[in-house]
Amino acid sequence: MIKVPAAREFSALEKNYLFTEVRRKTQKFLTENGGEVINLGIGDVAFPLPPVVVEAMVKATLEMGDNARFKGYPPEGGYPFLKEAIAGRYLKRGVKIDADEIFIGDGAKSDTSSFPDIFGRADVLITDPVYPVYADSSVLRGNRVTFVRGNKQNRFLPSPRGVEKKPYLIFLCSPNNPSGAAYGHDGLKEWVDFALETGSALLFDAAYSAFAGVGVPSSVFEIDGARECCAEFGSFSKSAGFTGLRCSWTVVPKELKCRKSQVSALWKRRQSVKFNGVSYVIQRAAEAALSERGITECGHAVEIYKKNAAAFTAFFKARGIWHTGGELSPYVWIECPKNLSSVEFFNGLLSGCRVVGTPGSGFGKAGEGFFRFSGFATENAAAEAVRRFERSDLFR
Amino acid sequence: MIKVPAAREFSALEKNYLFTEVRRKTQKFLTENGGEVINLGIGDVAFPLPPVVVEAMVKATLEMGDNARFKGYPPEGGYPFLKEAIAGRYLKRGVKIDADEIFIGDGAKSDTSSFPDIFGRADVLITDPVYPVYADSSVLRGNRVTFVRGNKQNRFLPSPRGVEKKPYLIFLCSPNNPSGAAYGHDGLKEWVDFALETGSALLFDAAYSAFAGVGVPSSVFEIDGARECCAEFGSFSKSAGFTGLRCSWTVVPKELKCRKSQVSALWKRRQSVKFNGVSYVIQRAAEAALSERGITECGHAVEIYKKNAAAFTAFFKARGIWHTGGELSPYVWIECPKNLSSVEFFNGLLSGCRVVGTPGSGFGKAGEGFFRFSGFATENAAAEAVRRFERSDLFR
Repeated sequence: MIKVPAAREFSALEKNYLFTEVRRKTQKFLTENGGEVINLGIGDVAFPLPPVVVEAMVKATLEMGDNARFKGYPPEGGYPFLKEAIAGRYLKRGVKIDADEIFIGDGAKSDTSSFPDIFGRADVLITDPVYPVYADSSVLRGNRVTFVRGNKQNRFLPSPRGVEKKPYLIFLCSPNNPSGAAYGHDGLKEWVDFALETGSALLFDAAYSAFAGVGVPSSVFEIDGARECCAEFGSFSKSAGFTGLRCSWTVVPKELKCRKSQVSALWKRRQSVKFNGVSYVIQRAAEAALSERGITECGHAVEIYKKNAAAFTAFFKARGIWHTGGELSPYVWIECPKNLSSVEFFNGLLSGCRVVGTPGSGFGKAGEGFFRFSGFATENAAAEAVRRFERSDLFR
Repeated sequence: MIKVPAAREFSALEKNYLFTEVRRKTQKFLTENGGEVINLGIGDVAFPLPPVVVEAMVKATLEMGDNARFKGYPPEGGYPFLKEAIAGRYLKRGVKIDADEIFIGDGAKSDTSSFPDIFGRADVLITDPVYPVYADSSVLRGNRVTFVRGNKQNRFLPSPRGVEKKPYLIFLCSPNNPSGAAYGHDGLKEWVDFALETGSALLFDAAYSAFAGVGVPSSVFEIDGARECCAEFGSFSKSAGFTGLRCSWTVVPKELKCRKSQVSALWKRRQSVKFNGVSYVIQRAAEAALSERGITECGHAVEIYKKNAAAFTAFFKARGIWHTGGELSPYVWIECPKNLSSVEFFNGLLSGCRVVGTPGSGFGKAGEGFFRFSGFATENAAAEAVRRFERSDLFR
């Protein structure tokens, strides 16, 4: 036994990561009961990589086997070709970002959970319910967390009104995981204004921006003043089916400064100590996903995921079950019927419908009594899930 | 300007990461002088991926484009096929490691720099000179660092004798970067015994184990008692040319415990919050590198790198320049001729020979006055470098 103690922050964490726990329970059910389940739980994509991405990866892999074209360590912060493709993606939406404000990472989880490490101990402001990694990584960092609660009244789009005014690291995810709700321009501006007024840094998780429709900001940088107080995290996971490839980006604008330091310089220095970049092959895959053909091909899957979410929404609407999301997001968020707790509903859904979803309570206290369904499924699986819902007593 | 302060630990770091700085100086020289340089500086490999790896990647990529065989989020800790292949690699060397003691990562830099995060603030013991990431990440973590100095007398293989006895996180890299020196069984046993005696955790970086020859431990787990006090980091970067792919592993034995916690459980929990795994395609590439054919094909490059290092060694020997490494390692470590400082020698070598190496001072105080040459080059480049050394006044 070694005498170096474990970080005490670990004892404040739940023993298991939410999605690990959902996977464990599902496995146990399958072992005991056999057969299959429809998985609308973990937010994993259902469709394979589009052909344009596969072609780019094969090409890049062959380069890596060629004497003259082999690539070793990737350049710090990412290959210029990918950073420029991402800058181009923003420009199409009317947002000007310089390529050197973009840092390539291996996933929005890594990026969002590590970004706070460049700051001293801080107060963290997190909307609840939300992706558990923001709170978990804050706890591991020893940061104090304040939650702003979502609820039926604010349709799970809480505003910063009423929050004590001081500098925070604010995490905001819109379109939101798990609620599927998305801030409009005014709602998001309220958060940016709050950050400007309090000297906070707003860390905007745009992992689901591909699902945001017309009229909803897909980037926080569509809001005036955001370049002085925001960083943004983007991901290829949900928009291009990269959950099994691992590629993401972080935008840190030049105007984002904390006292004498440029935040981008801190992030660059942190990454140079703790990260060695993303595979050349994966960066080429990401570039392909942003090409004209890539946008079209990736768009097919996104449309199906949205259609699935819309099919769930239609069912819940018909049954008079309170819900949000499902339009600008792959997620539908419902109030558990019959006053069931989130976990009771999870268990009932698993045994009664053989459908796996995610207990809302896993996303924070304000998620208790709610439940997340993910549209990441094939059309057949989604339709079969709805048929099972229709037959079930759970929704009556 | 935001009011959340930067982590104060950043101010204790050098402004630039060593290898970034070497790259910057080289670029500046090329811009001002034109022409080319032979890069024996950053430890990047020179040969492309072997065919067996390329084939496995193409196959895996095609799977990722196929409806029935697509893989989403990788399983936490890595795919069983790769963990078993790594366990098999250890077994061939007589070391029994269970697959579930192995965690797949995206690089030894990420793994070694983040592993200390699972412990509370600790005293860190680091041999000097060494890979700067151990000290930099310790500084960022707010850990106090004690250095054990290497020198000509101990041939850059310092022992823990004379070190104050208390619990540390000990970083040890053997074969060593930068000195190329490798502990024999007895030298390594001294460190393991010290860790056992003091309740320390010995974090063993085996990134260069493919270069260790017969009679030199290629794993710390060849030493009795290591399972109670050691974790080990392995990498595909240097052995299989994966610097541009990113794959590594960490071994955390079941016997490694800190008070009530199993260290592997802490690492697993940390990774579940801050990491989302390595691409399926890259894990298949790593599996291929460990196949019989992979070992043969990867071995070719390793042999050339060792031959290059041997060619440098032969030159330094002939000139009576003090040196170590170069036999069990891709690195040769020399005392700078003419009492030059490390940086003076770097500058002289760049302008006089158009060869880039790495100033020893970048690896710690004990590296001042020394210099690292890397054998990661083609045979032609290495031979040309030696010809330039022969013509140069620097070595006279």
